[in-house]
Amino acid sequence: MRTSQMLIPTLREVPAEAEVISHQLLLRAGFIRKSASGIYTYLPLAHRVLKKIMQIVREEMDHQGGQELLMPIVQPAEMWLESGRWHVYGPELFRLKDRHNRDFCLGPTHEEVITILIRGEVRSYKQLPQLLYQIQSKFRDERRPRFGLMRGREFIMKDLYSFDKDEEGLEVSYQKMHAAYTNIFTRCGVQFRPVEADSGAIGGSTTHEFMVLADSGEAAILYCSSCDYAANNEKAAIPAAGLDPSIEKRALEEEITPGQRSAEDVAKFLGITTQQVIKTMIYRTDKELVAALVRGDRDVNEIKLLNALGALTVDLASEEQVKDVSGAPLGYAGPVGIKVRIVADHEVMAMVNGISGANKVDAHLINVNPGRDFKADLIEDIRMVQAGEPCPKCGAQLQEARGIEVGQIFKLGTKYSKALGATFLDENGKEKPIVMGCYGVGVSRTMAAAIEQNHDQDGIIWPASIAPYQVIVIPVSAKDAKQMTIAEELYNELSKLGIEVVLDDRPERPGVKFKDADLIGFPLRVVVGGKATDEGVVEIRQRRSGQTDLIPISDVIKYVREILPIL
Amino acid sequence: MRTSQMLIPTLREVPAEAEVISHQLLLRAGFIRKSASGIYTYLPLAHRVLKKIMQIVREEMDHQGGQELLMPIVQPAEMWLESGRWHVYGPELFRLKDRHNRDFCLGPTHEEVITILIRGEVRSYKQLPQLLYQIQSKFRDERRPRFGLMRGREFIMKDLYSFDKDEEGLEVSYQKMHAAYTNIFTRCGVQFRPVEADSGAIGGSTTHEFMVLADSGEAAILYCSSCDYAANNEKAAIPAAGLDPSIEKRALEEEITPGQRSAEDVAKFLGITTQQVIKTMIYRTDKELVAALVRGDRDVNEIKLLNALGALTVDLASEEQVKDVSGAPLGYAGPVGIKVRIVADHEVMAMVNGISGANKVDAHLINVNPGRDFKADLIEDIRMVQAGEPCPKCGAQLQEARGIEVGQIFKLGTKYSKALGATFLDENGKEKPIVMGCYGVGVSRTMAAAIEQNHDQDGIIWPASIAPYQVIVIPVSAKDAKQMTIAEELYNELSKLGIEVVLDDRPERPGVKFKDADLIGFPLRVVVGGKATDEGVVEIRQRRSGQTDLIPISDVIKYVREILPIL
Repeated sequence: MRTSQMLIPTLREVPAEAEVISHQLLLRAGFIRKSASGIYTYLPLAHRVLKKIMQIVREEMDHQGGQELLMPIVQPAEMWLESGRWHVYGPELFRLKDRHNRDFCLGPTHEEVITILIRGEVRSYKQLPQLLYQIQSKFRDERRPRFGLMRGREFIMKDLYSFDKDEEGLEVSYQKMHAAYTNIFTRCGVQFRPVEADSGAIGGSTTHEFMVLADSGEAAILYCSSCDYAANNEKAAIPAAGLDPSIEKRALEEEITPGQRSAEDVAKFLGITTQQVIKTMIYRTDKELVAALVRGDRDVNEIKLLNALGALTVDLASEEQVKDVSGAPLGYAGPVGIKVRIVADHEVMAMVNGISGANKVDAHLINVNPGRDFKADLIEDIRMVQAGEPCPKCGAQLQEARGIEVGQIFKLGTKYSKALGATFLDENGKEKPIVMGCYGVGVSRTMAAAIEQNHDQDGIIWPASIAPYQVIVIPVSAKDAKQMTIAEELYNELSKLGIEVVLDDRPERPGVKFKDADLIGFPLRVVVGGKATDEGVVEIRQRRSGQTDLIPISDVIKYVREILPIL
Repeated sequence: MRTSQMLIPTLREVPAEAEVISHQLLLRAGFIRKSASGIYTYLPLAHRVLKKIMQIVREEMDHQGGQELLMPIVQPAEMWLESGRWHVYGPELFRLKDRHNRDFCLGPTHEEVITILIRGEVRSYKQLPQLLYQIQSKFRDERRPRFGLMRGREFIMKDLYSFDKDEEGLEVSYQKMHAAYTNIFTRCGVQFRPVEADSGAIGGSTTHEFMVLADSGEAAILYCSSCDYAANNEKAAIPAAGLDPSIEKRALEEEITPGQRSAEDVAKFLGITTQQVIKTMIYRTDKELVAALVRGDRDVNEIKLLNALGALTVDLASEEQVKDVSGAPLGYAGPVGIKVRIVADHEVMAMVNGISGANKVDAHLINVNPGRDFKADLIEDIRMVQAGEPCPKCGAQLQEARGIEVGQIFKLGTKYSKALGATFLDENGKEKPIVMGCYGVGVSRTMAAAIEQNHDQDGIIWPASIAPYQVIVIPVSAKDAKQMTIAEELYNELSKLGIEVVLDDRPERPGVKFKDADLIGFPLRVVVGGKATDEGVVEIRQRRSGQTDLIPISDVIKYVREILPIL
């Protein structure tokens, strides 16, 4: 198309509302506009990018035997009452009533609708497996929508649901989706990693998140420098530490430590390292108060703690509660004599002659030996892993990175099929619950993540596979008839070959047109200027590398066709 | 794909809930399932049909310079308050509140969102025209959802909005869309007519509805047998009738007509035709009571009446109100001496010596002459047109048909741009409101309408361009290895050529497979049976014509490729 006929409202200023670079650039380059907090219109350029991502997703889903369908956005409350999620989901669920005062919600996800559908249609193992997916707008009433498309209230998702007769079948479906997701993000041209993640509240067991690596990512990832291990920091596992039997256990003593509350302060005061301190954190779960013990140089991983306790919620206890159970103000709690259950990290149990709070103001205990001086009710991996620690798979050093979650694959098991009664008859005529998985791709978020990873100070650098257009042809002067003729001819020739090309025919100064082209991020820019009319050559610039070549007009097509596939 | 791996839940029984044939067949052939009243899941086969219709729509929109975008489904109430529609739209608008108690609605249409968007981005006539469209789920909380996809509460629409600097520009955009819609429905393989329609409550002036002709259609259409005139019966115009000056006006008389209330009864009682009766109907508008006069053999067209009066609503008056203004019970009202404004149809004004109610029980007036015995406050075309009447364009006879509205194009003018302040600076630097049009295609309804028009007692007969698959290959016996091998080979060869083909590999009886194939409506059915293994020929049947040909296996590809484009 010609830019004079297109709606591409670029902005010179960085909009004040935009905190992250993808949000800034999507607004500035004329890709999105806000309708309400967390709710955006995708303008024509953004729609082209979305269409390409959707097409890649579709092809990879179909390639794995996925069948596309389309479920309703407006879902009846009855379905959510039946699964038990209507009262659990909380304020993130947009709820509404119809004219007859019946309750509905806007789908944030479709486990209920599809499980109830399958319940009605699948009777026999012969009808399994089924892989069903849709690409659709989803809704989540975020408490604090932000970062543009990264955390919106209306966003585009691909969600696939797998239905198998057993765990082995689920594993096959899961691996199909793992492969498909790997292909999808590879084809989208982004650097990513599939990482092990915590299965959290959805229930189920195994799950991987697909993370686009970017400094602005909300998630911390740990990955191995020498093998393929990678995990969300909520999940990253730790190889069990062994006890060193050569160290002699000394007698327990009390030290006065006036005003020394944190592990760091206590270590400094006593002239030891934080590795010798037993950090005692009091938590409140939905059921009880507990003391969580980690080494002084570590942090408690609340997700791991929650899973270890089988709790629904876990929060730090109040000062009041800490005082109640330890008998001392904040900062002096310790495992010896504390009046709550103790959950200790493996690393703590391997300590000899540690230092802990004395459950007494301004006092700590020295030579605390787990097992001898206190008993842990639960010994689990409950701490955060840090960069530099050994990989649980191969022992090499772990690296840390930030990531943006763009996909997640999930073994649901029988959680929904049991709750909603979706069963089948197996080979022996026995009724069994269908074994399910669910698999999501954040389509609109992938667009934003690609920008977070691919930009410079001038604007977006689209991977060619998802660029809204691949080439822009810019006549330096739209008033120069000869330049315009050459530009039009190149534009027509490229269009005819199916290359997506834009002709910037606006009567603007060249600087404005170049700035817009860089901002929007066309992979190739063809400039038709004085050299074109005088010497028969045009200038072709690659957006990513900045490489600029002077190419004879007659060779432009050849050049573009050769270079596009490798951008 | 192979049917054994597909979700195609066909039903033998006609579901009791389904009144119309498209609803019955969509359920029976495994295309849709209901989630709630008027809310459906589109199963994989339906999704394929929808995708094809959407692709045709997209290509035709793009061909006319349309730019695709995607606006939010959840729209803030502020926008609707600003346009004035929040309080007018009524219970068909799904409304909801977010977690901060702010009001939103689910978009039934997007005039507000797009006009506010354009208001922010368009400043100059140089940026016009713009043609912007989207394909998306829309929401309308129908009082009585029914007929499956024909009148749903969540449905798929394409909506395009045009923005021009003047009426001439709008006319160009309007004609572009008229051409695009003609192409769309032609390519979808349905019989249709663009008909003039009433612009109704949306405001604006010219509008055409695109009607798929089908006996089950909710709309009545009048079309000319010799020219291209066609109109919705709400709109169909009437050539003005002339007065015959040769007839002498006789003196007004009163006749006793005990119990004779209707035009038919009065005519029979007096031994005249209903054409001699002046039918007087009392209506209540939002402002007043009026008497509407039409000839006794005609019906009042309430839409025309509403437009003639410039009223917002028009309903028949109550018995009480009729008595108040005429002084007589229902059935005896007449124009002579009635105490309300009179709106007379042109045809009435051309009558000489007519018969009307006497505004007195059991009495009628004879030799009523308009102009002499009563004065009409308004003379307008306010009656329904009937088949057989002359075409207003060429005078040939009008025919009547039923239609399903699948598209509408609409000149909005400046209604929304004025209300929402969407202006531009013209060539002289003068600020003017943008001139708008809106243009809708009911994508999911088009699928249903195609079925209403294309089916027989065995099932759906898809036009090849929108069929979910073009060919089904059926081995008569899935247990016969030789048949299966031939079927697989044909399936693979056709697939490789990009022909959409299904292999029915289920271990079912041939009768079941044939019945399903007819029900689903594949344009071509290739049967691989004994003749294939013995004589090397397969049977190819055309779903629409029933024509069956025996084709050598080696010629199947050639045959299919030749016949598909003409189905």
